Amino acid sequence: MGSAASPPRALDAATQEDLKRVSAHRAVDMVESGMTLGLGTGSTAAHALDRLGDLLRTGALRAVAGVPTSLKTEAHAARVGIPMLALADAAEIHLSIDGADEVDPDLNLVKGRGGSLLREKMIEGAGARFVVIVDESKLVPRLGCTGAVPVEVVPFGSAYTLGLIRKVFDKLPGFHARLRTVKSKAGDGQEELFLTDNGNHIVEMFFEDGIHGNLRDISDSLLRITGVVEHGMFLGMATKVIVAKKDGTVAVLSKKVA
Amino acid sequence: MGSAASPPRALDAATQEDLKRVSAHRAVDMVESGMTLGLGTGSTAAHALDRLGDLLRTGALRAVAGVPTSLKTEAHAARVGIPMLALADAAEIHLSIDGADEVDPDLNLVKGRGGSLLREKMIEGAGARFVVIVDESKLVPRLGCTGAVPVEVVPFGSAYTLGLIRKVFDKLPGFHARLRTVKSKAGDGQEELFLTDNGNHIVEMFFEDGIHGNLRDISDSLLRITGVVEHGMFLGMATKVIVAKKDGTVAVLSKKVA
Repeated sequence: MGSAASPPRALDAATQEDLKRVSAHRAVDMVESGMTLGLGTGSTAAHALDRLGDLLRTGALRAVAGVPTSLKTEAHAARVGIPMLALADAAEIHLSIDGADEVDPDLNLVKGRGGSLLREKMIEGAGARFVVIVDESKLVPRLGCTGAVPVEVVPFGSAYTLGLIRKVFDKLPGFHARLRTVKSKAGDGQEELFLTDNGNHIVEMFFEDGIHGNLRDISDSLLRITGVVEHGMFLGMATKVIVAKKDGTVAVLSKKVA
Repeated sequence: MGSAASPPRALDAATQEDLKRVSAHRAVDMVESGMTLGLGTGSTAAHALDRLGDLLRTGALRAVAGVPTSLKTEAHAARVGIPMLALADAAEIHLSIDGADEVDPDLNLVKGRGGSLLREKMIEGAGARFVVIVDESKLVPRLGCTGAVPVEVVPFGSAYTLGLIRKVFDKLPGFHARLRTVKSKAGDGQEELFLTDNGNHIVEMFFEDGIHGNLRDISDSLLRITGVVEHGMFLGMATKVIVAKKDGTVAVLSKKVA
């Protein structure tokens, strides 16, 4: 951080982008011709889309179709020439590839800080294999350590639903939650509530020291709240996590078979 | 059914409407000046709205505000002069009054055949007291005996979500489920998918002999499906059920204290 001997910041940034790319390409190595893929959203997943487009263009892969997890991914996939299918039209999703905001030691994830957790969870839960691609900065001892855990809620009564979510964690010191906002498109400097691809709001939950306790119980407590559509904890869904490390190595973590 | 001695059908219909009115008026007797009320949706709840409007107009009730459970109820309440509050602006909901499609012996309900289950569940779950108003035809030995149990699902991938809901009950003989449709507004005789006030779709579940098994476990199984927003089983929510009977009597059923 600013010592004369450190490389300039631009190089640091390039390095993290390189790590994302390494991880994404390793995941795309698992794709075979004829597969239907769940296509993730975000900066790491974007590298996988580019790579898939390249391999389809050169003919190294054929007859691959993608089910996009967001409108953004749909546009990106169209741009790089990946044929697409709607979820209900896909007879089977063979493999999904996506980034994650956090990965815990049991391969549970936090996802959706980009705002598309619901479609991601639906599509990535639909297939037998879900490969997560991250750089090592995403590995955490506990979910919720490094930032927001998002919860998608219906717009009607969302301020009331926020209050019910707060009650789930009311004995937890340092917990806070808020409705996610964005700068108004009117350009008047006002904030307005963020809208997901499904027209819903997002509650962001923040934990001082991550989420302690049984994650499945906490998941059920959230899902039982009327007004909660889905949350960004992806429990037991990842089958592999590909981690690109700063030292140039790549680790592949696999789900333990219980 | 069609014997010469039976009263004509038109009289039967009037009688059922009378029973709905009797039940609704009995519930409105519990309203006190100064209360904030959850206002239900449907043909029975409509009688309660009319009665509230009358009592406010005559001055028998003052300073009552309502939180409407649907756009339809909002319009009706405005028409009869009930002041309204948004859910998030109501400091407290003292009492909710609504009809139900089915009531089982433990006062669990099926609601939402009219399509507004989510807002109803949110508002009626927000207050301490929830009074249900029905005629005796709504009393059932088990939920799901007399028609559809609705499930609100996000439009994205709703045909896929329907498949996951079917899997929850795949060992149950006679179970079937479908996406609710309505006649197209274009007037061309086509069917289109029903949209809730929240812009979601509805899956209708049908049970040959009602829902057997632990209702809370079944509720959790449904809520854990990504894409399911909420379902129409209202478990443990009703504090009183006012039943108007054909013989002219009214029964008031109260929640057992465990």
